Amino acid sequence: MHHQTLVVKMGLLSWEGQLKRVTSLLNTLTDEQLSQEIAPGRNTGAYLIGHLIAVHDGIVPLFGLGEKLHPELEEIYITSPDRSGKKTPSITQLRELWKEVHAHLEQRLATLTEEQWFQRHMSVSEEDFQKEPHRNRLNVLIGRAIHISYHLGQLILLKN
Amino acid sequence: MHHQTLVVKMGLLSWEGQLKRVTSLLNTLTDEQLSQEIAPGRNTGAYLIGHLIAVHDGIVPLFGLGEKLHPELEEIYITSPDRSGKKTPSITQLRELWKEVHAHLEQRLATLTEEQWFQRHMSVSEEDFQKEPHRNRLNVLIGRAIHISYHLGQLILLKN
Repeated sequence: MHHQTLVVKMGLLSWEGQLKRVTSLLNTLTDEQLSQEIAPGRNTGAYLIGHLIAVHDGIVPLFGLGEKLHPELEEIYITSPDRSGKKTPSITQLRELWKEVHAHLEQRLATLTEEQWFQRHMSVSEEDFQKEPHRNRLNVLIGRAIHISYHLGQLILLKN
Repeated sequence: MHHQTLVVKMGLLSWEGQLKRVTSLLNTLTDEQLSQEIAPGRNTGAYLIGHLIAVHDGIVPLFGLGEKLHPELEEIYITSPDRSGKKTPSITQLRELWKEVHAHLEQRLATLTEEQWFQRHMSVSEEDFQKEPHRNRLNVLIGRAIHISYHLGQLILLKN
């Protein structure tokens, strides 16, 4: 297999692997557990799930693949902290949003050619990309897999 | 830049970025904070740091680059849970081990050629590697960056 094909596969497997781990955890946690804080005074499980949904919905425009499905989540789960007083989706709604946003993203990512994975994403200028060619879509996806893992290490604390 | 050169760089930057985040955190946490549990009844900061050191020391033989510096850490921090009753290094010693193991690993990784990053690591057979060519050294390094992030999401809870 050509290295380029291989590394796109490696990136996608890392990303999908981390996503699956959160999906499995979500399926084992009750709504009650998800509404708890991961540690005293820290973020709730629900906030962290909403945060991951909002960040992942943002990959679609970042990669030039269309619009976010739920732009309203950014203010609740990215620019505001937990318990900001903003109206938040219920945990039942979060479970639906998790499926919906990831199905949409997966479908959009599947349209990318191998070459496109190595092209710059939308927050890098052509000029900066000449200097830093690693700032491509594939690198962002690996970064997002790392980001999932950070919060997975926290969400796991909700388990008994 | 050729894609192969680029992806090795992407993998190394991800790995080094996560390592630096833990090193910075370590430098801001007191011995007292590191000896605390990340959440009630969970692993201590010291155990998680020891765990990362032991896992990273294990990359050296896994990549066929020589022996571990501290094989005795595996039993304490990988095969045993926290509070196993085994004699553990002090937090001062852990801080030294962190530097020592990563300096050694960095020096060993620097000897790898680009081609070697795409070759199988020592726990994959030649036969399995034919079927799953993504199971190469670079993929393991990305997986280890993801693993760091998981525990970093927990270690950060030690901060006030």
